[in-house]
Amino acid sequence: MSATRQLNLNIGFDSAGFFDFAWPFRTGKREDIFDPGYFARLARVAHRGRFDAVFFTDTPSLTAPPGGKPMHTADPLTLATTIMAQVPDLGAIVTVSSTYNLPYNLARATQTANLMSQGRLALNIVSTFNPYSAANYSADPLPPREERYARATEFVEILKDLWNSWDERRGVPTDGQFWDQAEARAINYKGAHYTIRGPLNVPRGAHGYPVLAQAGGSDSGIELAARHAEVIYTTMLNKQAGRAFGDKVRNRAAELGRHPGSIRIFPGVVVIIAESREEALRKHELWTGTGSEDGLLQRFAMQHGFELDSFDPDEVLTSEQLAVNQSRGKSVGMQMGLADLVKYERVTAREVVRRTEIHHRLLLGTPEDIADGLIEFWEDGTVDGYMIKPPRAPDDIELFVDRVIPILQDRGVFRREYAGDTLRQRYGLSEPD
Amino acid sequence: MSATRQLNLNIGFDSAGFFDFAWPFRTGKREDIFDPGYFARLARVAHRGRFDAVFFTDTPSLTAPPGGKPMHTADPLTLATTIMAQVPDLGAIVTVSSTYNLPYNLARATQTANLMSQGRLALNIVSTFNPYSAANYSADPLPPREERYARATEFVEILKDLWNSWDERRGVPTDGQFWDQAEARAINYKGAHYTIRGPLNVPRGAHGYPVLAQAGGSDSGIELAARHAEVIYTTMLNKQAGRAFGDKVRNRAAELGRHPGSIRIFPGVVVIIAESREEALRKHELWTGTGSEDGLLQRFAMQHGFELDSFDPDEVLTSEQLAVNQSRGKSVGMQMGLADLVKYERVTAREVVRRTEIHHRLLLGTPEDIADGLIEFWEDGTVDGYMIKPPRAPDDIELFVDRVIPILQDRGVFRREYAGDTLRQRYGLSEPD
Repeated sequence: MSATRQLNLNIGFDSAGFFDFAWPFRTGKREDIFDPGYFARLARVAHRGRFDAVFFTDTPSLTAPPGGKPMHTADPLTLATTIMAQVPDLGAIVTVSSTYNLPYNLARATQTANLMSQGRLALNIVSTFNPYSAANYSADPLPPREERYARATEFVEILKDLWNSWDERRGVPTDGQFWDQAEARAINYKGAHYTIRGPLNVPRGAHGYPVLAQAGGSDSGIELAARHAEVIYTTMLNKQAGRAFGDKVRNRAAELGRHPGSIRIFPGVVVIIAESREEALRKHELWTGTGSEDGLLQRFAMQHGFELDSFDPDEVLTSEQLAVNQSRGKSVGMQMGLADLVKYERVTAREVVRRTEIHHRLLLGTPEDIADGLIEFWEDGTVDGYMIKPPRAPDDIELFVDRVIPILQDRGVFRREYAGDTLRQRYGLSEPD
Repeated sequence: MSATRQLNLNIGFDSAGFFDFAWPFRTGKREDIFDPGYFARLARVAHRGRFDAVFFTDTPSLTAPPGGKPMHTADPLTLATTIMAQVPDLGAIVTVSSTYNLPYNLARATQTANLMSQGRLALNIVSTFNPYSAANYSADPLPPREERYARATEFVEILKDLWNSWDERRGVPTDGQFWDQAEARAINYKGAHYTIRGPLNVPRGAHGYPVLAQAGGSDSGIELAARHAEVIYTTMLNKQAGRAFGDKVRNRAAELGRHPGSIRIFPGVVVIIAESREEALRKHELWTGTGSEDGLLQRFAMQHGFELDSFDPDEVLTSEQLAVNQSRGKSVGMQMGLADLVKYERVTAREVVRRTEIHHRLLLGTPEDIADGLIEFWEDGTVDGYMIKPPRAPDDIELFVDRVIPILQDRGVFRREYAGDTLRQRYGLSEPD
């Protein structure tokens, strides 16, 4: 690692914030989440904070818990395109389903968005696991996990083939030509799930193609990441576990002939910023709708199938109690953070509920506490950066920018001004062939 | 028609212009068509011209004649989203394939783009007829025309159902709610081709849903238009034929219970603007790559299957010679303009080649000639406006804005300033239920 190594920071833009029940404590109106002015304001704050990119998670269906808010509404790619047309420098990481997209259309729309933003787009490829989403596409049930990953693998191969299928560097138009037909080649992809001719009708352009991110944590997910991902979005509650995960993916990538440095690891981190740790604990209880530490513990017991009668929040948790359940309609990667935590550390439920929120690592306390926590996993190279998850938007994005970013800048780990032209350059990734 | 009836004008944004071979005579670089700065400049010119909208035709495949240029490259919806984020007022009409899109994704992306642009989006729904495009989606051949229209009809019904499925006016959130679940309803669509649950996870918002345009001219196309279209993009070479077409669609719409005034007819018009008619004729020959009137005639003979040996360009053309061929892999609507022309008028090939270009009506001459030609079909209500097709971009967009628009404004038929908030309002369409 060079002396100038810098932290990468991305900020979650999830409607009115990442928490289902924190919306009563945010500033603004309900209508914000469909208001272009709201997103333009958020983007300007994110730009002031010098974030690498805004990050949109996604599910293509309308779901919200009673009393909560819809988390995934506006189409992320359309919203990202709007924001990047209005604000310079700032990139966007857009979640897309490999199960419920036509690869030619997605390759084309994303190559266009990357051209129009001059190289500021990243895609987070997920294999949708939500049956409500499946029902928005056909009467067919959600394919089993292995089939979804087999499709996802073909899908990513096709995206890359299409993105590269028209490359202006392959041709030399003469004076009598607008372009040289040799620039573009059919891909003639034939897989078990897709047959696609190509070429794409959009060239990769001077800024290359979008950065590929991947979020799966199952064995199939890790294999896909090792083959194709440039960015891995993951959950990481313990540094040793995170280090082991990173080694596993990078070693597998090396076996496949990739440079292990060609992968960046950005776990999600939920931040609750306050004037004191005590105040942050109260905010945590309030914003989650649990109301108290007992409420947090009760939610934990229910989520993880503990019998409430015999549940002891001060007992050390075991791997058996928090084993990953592959058969649940849930992300394996999201479950793994907790399974790994109890494997590497002796922790009680009372400790755990303050260290994780919505599967992610939770950092709560003063701005200094947050900065310390971010630097801790980053300084030895375990992670390259983070997806910061603000419980409320715009409030916690503004707080992070105004209170945490200056500390990171003063400590010399985060940029004061944007450098590099493209998102890929800011992530320290080289242009793929 | 009220005294304040105004012309609607939309301007084609087709890469470097509408003509395949006019690019050597345009200003600018080859790279323009992938340069966000180029499209932003075009959009500012279009805004200065007070156009209602920019219009993107589309085909999802890379095709270009030898010596020509790729016509359809950047994804139209992504490009339109970018432009509308940068320039106020100006709307966008985006062509989308009902054969090669997933309805939930398209409904979501377009509802988002309409929200973000505050009601400036229109969709031109086409049932793709290009086998090169089909091969970019699967190994299946292009479905036959009737099946494509059956799918298109379901597709449009689903779009409208999804766009309306979450309507904030149906709910009243209380203080303890971010939203009211009653606002959104599953659509539970079950057709022969699609089964879609819904609701859409994006509400229709204050500006309603996108304007629906349709371009088909076959019987199935007219039926679809009469049921659902608010704007019809068509080819019209003769006013009587155009009037008959409009009556047919509007009468059918009335039979289906729609108000006949709820449909706007915008034929495409190619404009070649010069200082004299003679100069315009030479430009026509030069920009089409035919080089001379003989070249234009030869191209006509070849396109329409005349024997060159016996072809007499000064003989009156017959309906038999220019009958619509339903079996060709071509748009019926595009062929109908010419078939209708020879039905309503005694014209020779020598006359026809100066009255039509790329299926559309051709207006060539001085700015006054162009303005006269536009007003001629509009003043008695045969058409409501036009899709203007510039042979070269940016040149002919700039010429139209600088030379033709002021004449139309001076004659009181075209706005000097934008009025109305949404594209639907500018088209004089009422908000659908």
